[in-house]
Amino acid sequence: MSTITAVDVLDIRFPTSLELDGSDAMNTDPDYSAAYLIIRTDAGDELEGHGLVFTIGRGNEVEAAAIGALRAHILGLDVEGLLGDMGATWKLLAHDSQLRWLGPEKGVMHMAIGAVVNALWDLKAKRAGLPLWDLLSRMTPAELVALVDFRYLTDALTPEEALDILRQAEPGRAARRTRLLAEGYPAYTTTPGWLGYSDDKLVHLAKEAVADRFRQIKLKVGDNLQDDIRRLRTAREAVGPDIKIAVDANQRWDVDTAIEWIKHLAPFDIAWIEEPTSPDDVLGHAVIARAVAPIPVATGEHVQNRVVFKQMLQAGSLEVLQIDAARVAGVNENVAILLLAAKFGVRVCPHAGGVGLCEAVQHLSMFDFVALSGNKDDRMIEFVDHLHEHFVTPIDVHDGCYWPPSAPGGGSEMVGSSLAEFLFPDGPVWTRLDAGLTAPVSEKAPRAVAKAVS
Amino acid sequence: MSTITAVDVLDIRFPTSLELDGSDAMNTDPDYSAAYLIIRTDAGDELEGHGLVFTIGRGNEVEAAAIGALRAHILGLDVEGLLGDMGATWKLLAHDSQLRWLGPEKGVMHMAIGAVVNALWDLKAKRAGLPLWDLLSRMTPAELVALVDFRYLTDALTPEEALDILRQAEPGRAARRTRLLAEGYPAYTTTPGWLGYSDDKLVHLAKEAVADRFRQIKLKVGDNLQDDIRRLRTAREAVGPDIKIAVDANQRWDVDTAIEWIKHLAPFDIAWIEEPTSPDDVLGHAVIARAVAPIPVATGEHVQNRVVFKQMLQAGSLEVLQIDAARVAGVNENVAILLLAAKFGVRVCPHAGGVGLCEAVQHLSMFDFVALSGNKDDRMIEFVDHLHEHFVTPIDVHDGCYWPPSAPGGGSEMVGSSLAEFLFPDGPVWTRLDAGLTAPVSEKAPRAVAKAVS
Repeated sequence: MSTITAVDVLDIRFPTSLELDGSDAMNTDPDYSAAYLIIRTDAGDELEGHGLVFTIGRGNEVEAAAIGALRAHILGLDVEGLLGDMGATWKLLAHDSQLRWLGPEKGVMHMAIGAVVNALWDLKAKRAGLPLWDLLSRMTPAELVALVDFRYLTDALTPEEALDILRQAEPGRAARRTRLLAEGYPAYTTTPGWLGYSDDKLVHLAKEAVADRFRQIKLKVGDNLQDDIRRLRTAREAVGPDIKIAVDANQRWDVDTAIEWIKHLAPFDIAWIEEPTSPDDVLGHAVIARAVAPIPVATGEHVQNRVVFKQMLQAGSLEVLQIDAARVAGVNENVAILLLAAKFGVRVCPHAGGVGLCEAVQHLSMFDFVALSGNKDDRMIEFVDHLHEHFVTPIDVHDGCYWPPSAPGGGSEMVGSSLAEFLFPDGPVWTRLDAGLTAPVSEKAPRAVAKAVS
Repeated sequence: MSTITAVDVLDIRFPTSLELDGSDAMNTDPDYSAAYLIIRTDAGDELEGHGLVFTIGRGNEVEAAAIGALRAHILGLDVEGLLGDMGATWKLLAHDSQLRWLGPEKGVMHMAIGAVVNALWDLKAKRAGLPLWDLLSRMTPAELVALVDFRYLTDALTPEEALDILRQAEPGRAARRTRLLAEGYPAYTTTPGWLGYSDDKLVHLAKEAVADRFRQIKLKVGDNLQDDIRRLRTAREAVGPDIKIAVDANQRWDVDTAIEWIKHLAPFDIAWIEEPTSPDDVLGHAVIARAVAPIPVATGEHVQNRVVFKQMLQAGSLEVLQIDAARVAGVNENVAILLLAAKFGVRVCPHAGGVGLCEAVQHLSMFDFVALSGNKDDRMIEFVDHLHEHFVTPIDVHDGCYWPPSAPGGGSEMVGSSLAEFLFPDGPVWTRLDAGLTAPVSEKAPRAVAKAVS
């Protein structure tokens, strides 16, 4: 018997806007950040659960406050009880009627629940001495189904159907595990395609991606059509005809604009069009998907929960479903979404990048391959080469693939010195930026930006 | 010229769970609360802008933190500039790329934007010496269209169409203003129908509602079918055949359950079924609406933004659209939603109750009648008789109607002594409850509940 003795919450920010890493048509100056938590126990085994919500700067303190609001839900509770029934633990957090009012099941509060859920999974995997993907892959179909909250899903997926899907995958688990370890899991890279990069930098990074054996790159689009056409042509010339190029509009367009704009990009052999419009617009995505076919529509990194994914599958809004490790309410809800994707037969290509999203989401794809969809041939995990050095178990990406982590845990644990260095606003990185501040501060710019634009 | 000199944020909570006021199938023990802000200027006119987000207890501090995150966006800015172009001001807040990541346009952050926007409208109306409904009703169609962010709406409503709707209503404005002042705006009451009330209390309050000339009451349902049938029969006997009875499931059901359950309630002549399932489920609501017709489906109090309302109208998910003053991003977004409702020809019956929702939302319905839809005959504003004494300009509801406020402002300003009394956790009401705490505190119960269940 052990109990949870502390839930520490940290506001961690990286001044990435200084370099325009991560810039796109909607997010022009992100400071990649994490509202971060550490769950400690009195088990005496030194094991901690780490989890995070990725944000892009301002408002990270709001996300941290939301995680703090959940502290009282788990502090002092029995660890074995919480970890032994993660389905019930999920509901303990997600069904709190008062906190639910703040969503329900969306936005700041829902992402905070995801961070707590993921931190508990991290602790559970560390206790099991297994990487999360392997822990999940060893659970029985019934245990996996018990993780899922089927409320609002049963018109599309019942517990019985979920059980069938998992049971069908059961006989092949061992063979696919062996294949995963031998082959890795395919990756694609967004590193060349940020909107703030020059054409020269784009060409250089695109060629580097091909040399690194990636089979797909992704370009940000949507700010200016002529720029998009020029950059696509440039990228296509750089990588040749055999490398796939996806494009990502980051929600920039209305429905009709999307359809028109995509027609102009179609000649460059687009692998998919990502986030053409509002992530809330199930029907709008469906209209776009029909209009731009056979170019697949991809979305998901901002899709708030399983209920919206359910509808996107029902309506035919997407062909490529992009789960995110830190947008929905953690591992449990992503298991639900993977089951929905399997039921509807669409491929899952996770969103990653940011802070620690690659480290976390790879576990879900690898589990999906071993024990759920049983498929990875037409699937890829996004790869962005930023900030991995801050993680205790950074991703291992080479030869165009993610290679399965063997370290126990869920992957979100950051290095202690990084947590100290990038603590906002009092860590040394931020106090140094503060001291070097020379440019005039925009009157509307809160502190993070005031520092980053200096 | 004046500037914004302070944005004060307060965490205000009422221990309503002690009486089970406001209890329903999903919200069993709410402590009605408000994340509250006061905008002060150096104009020397003593005028302040007040706004709030209604919550039901735990997490109110998260909402307050979100409002705090917006402080830097307006502090020190020119008041006349902000109030003179409220469309641009809305975008200044809602389009912040870093804060947008926390939604986008949903949940904690979006509601916080709504509170700031509404506080600015309160200040603008006070400066004009007009109640908000009257201020809005005097704006030109072009000025009103300029308030709306049409991003993600143009496949359903263009600025030109919005202008047409408003222009068609223009000639009748003066006559409808006179009618509004003479006739009031119809109300219905939820006071009898809370799930935690006994049958005797239900009968007593239902008869009182009829005596008070309300033409519709509303009952909470969805927890237990036999209880619902008994309570509906009891209520129908109490009010007779001529009074409408709406029912509200507060998101309790899955799609199939909703359809089945509603069939059992249909014999009692249901005026509408409210929130049958997840507010995110556009397609689910559409399926339910078709299955239970001609019983109308009503929803909206938890619909996160104009993009989801747009789809609900496109899909035929609702017949009764229930705007809420504090769920979306303030007056501007509600003007967009009222325009969408007019375009699709559905009636708007606002959600109210909570803390100050009646005081705020009446302005939107009255404006809609005078200058937008031009219709109030089939519409009603919800009325709940709670907590009005804490407002500087409480609603005036009698003879089954809301009567137009004449005091300048948007209605959300609370009495100073109430703000002091119910401040959480250090106001005298909460310190007294703390001192009187005798029952054991549930290990998962945060402070508000710990106090309320004592």
